[in-house]
Amino acid sequence: MVLKLHGLSVSISTARVVACLHEKSVDFELVPVDLFACENKQPEFLTKNPFGKVPVLEDDDITLFESRAITAYVAEKFKETGHDLIRHENFNEAALVKVWTEVESQQYNPAIDPIIFEFFAKPVVGMEPDQTVMDASLEKLKKVLDVYETRLSNNKFLAGDFYSLADLHHFPGTFYFMKTPWSSLVHDRPHVKAWWEEISSRPASKKVAEGMNFGEV
Amino acid sequence: MVLKLHGLSVSISTARVVACLHEKSVDFELVPVDLFACENKQPEFLTKNPFGKVPVLEDDDITLFESRAITAYVAEKFKETGHDLIRHENFNEAALVKVWTEVESQQYNPAIDPIIFEFFAKPVVGMEPDQTVMDASLEKLKKVLDVYETRLSNNKFLAGDFYSLADLHHFPGTFYFMKTPWSSLVHDRPHVKAWWEEISSRPASKKVAEGMNFGEV
Repeated sequence: MVLKLHGLSVSISTARVVACLHEKSVDFELVPVDLFACENKQPEFLTKNPFGKVPVLEDDDITLFESRAITAYVAEKFKETGHDLIRHENFNEAALVKVWTEVESQQYNPAIDPIIFEFFAKPVVGMEPDQTVMDASLEKLKKVLDVYETRLSNNKFLAGDFYSLADLHHFPGTFYFMKTPWSSLVHDRPHVKAWWEEISSRPASKKVAEGMNFGEV
Repeated sequence: MVLKLHGLSVSISTARVVACLHEKSVDFELVPVDLFACENKQPEFLTKNPFGKVPVLEDDDITLFESRAITAYVAEKFKETGHDLIRHENFNEAALVKVWTEVESQQYNPAIDPIIFEFFAKPVVGMEPDQTVMDASLEKLKKVLDVYETRLSNNKFLAGDFYSLADLHHFPGTFYFMKTPWSSLVHDRPHVKAWWEEISSRPASKKVAEGMNFGEV
């Protein structure tokens, strides 16, 4: 059975999984979920993910949710195909992939996510962005990017000199962030800039980006 | 070399790793970090974790940070000793451990963490808890616990009928939460209550709890 991914190509979490599936050259069917019609809160969807969030992956007899758990599953199950995203043959490198994957989850995403939400999502439903929230998040993000700048001056990618899940998880959020007025936070840090250019120019990233046109939501 | 864990036994993130080390019967040395003297912001500590946060694990030639990355490393490296926390012999069960580990990280912790911070941490430094923040977080937490109640009515633990990292990661935060005036959120949900009693009565959890006396900070 071909993998079924329930989600929306413009959703950051869905795009995270789509990028991973492309990197692993895995065929899948994207099943659109109509968030505006609250399809994700209907009983049928809630049996797949009781939290009512996208994406959800169905693969044979297993149903998974939480984008980062899904990418870990895909990267492990298809470890022999496409790009190795988890360094499965080197225990210490694999551990560093986990560390920097957690950094995205606990440090980077909590800083960048509110900016994307305020700047892009709120206006879609006619709400005003909250400048205080954006300012505080931008301050947080600067500090995280300062650490990245140092890290990336010694390593081509976050976990080492290899592209991994840790980098991939940053792609969709950063893709939107680069369309805000604050993209200089990336451009002004030369090693972060080079890293961003490297990860965003990967064929898998470009393919994901095609579906990420927020104006068409 | 015995594992060195830099951290504080009262810190939720440190306690998460300590619980894992106890479950795996792994010897380690806890190296205290004086947060009040800002030791975690000094150059020496920043070489271990550039974000200046505890815990940090040193094991032979590798230094790791981010508690959830450390527990994943320990659970994998010592998979043959102590309790199996990652279901390494069953691919689908291992995937469900990842899903519910992510649920703790993305749904549960963002709800419970602000409550612990406002209620316990702020008064330590003479600040008033922000009731608005606590109320909003309690509402979020109730919704997460409603999902847990349903899940735990069909499974003894979050990822299935086995204790795993997914449950373990909840222990330290919930341990403090149960000392707040809102512990009824757990007690009023019979399956969540039974789950909490089960995980908090494990010998490893009890051992961790001995070090978690916030009044002694």
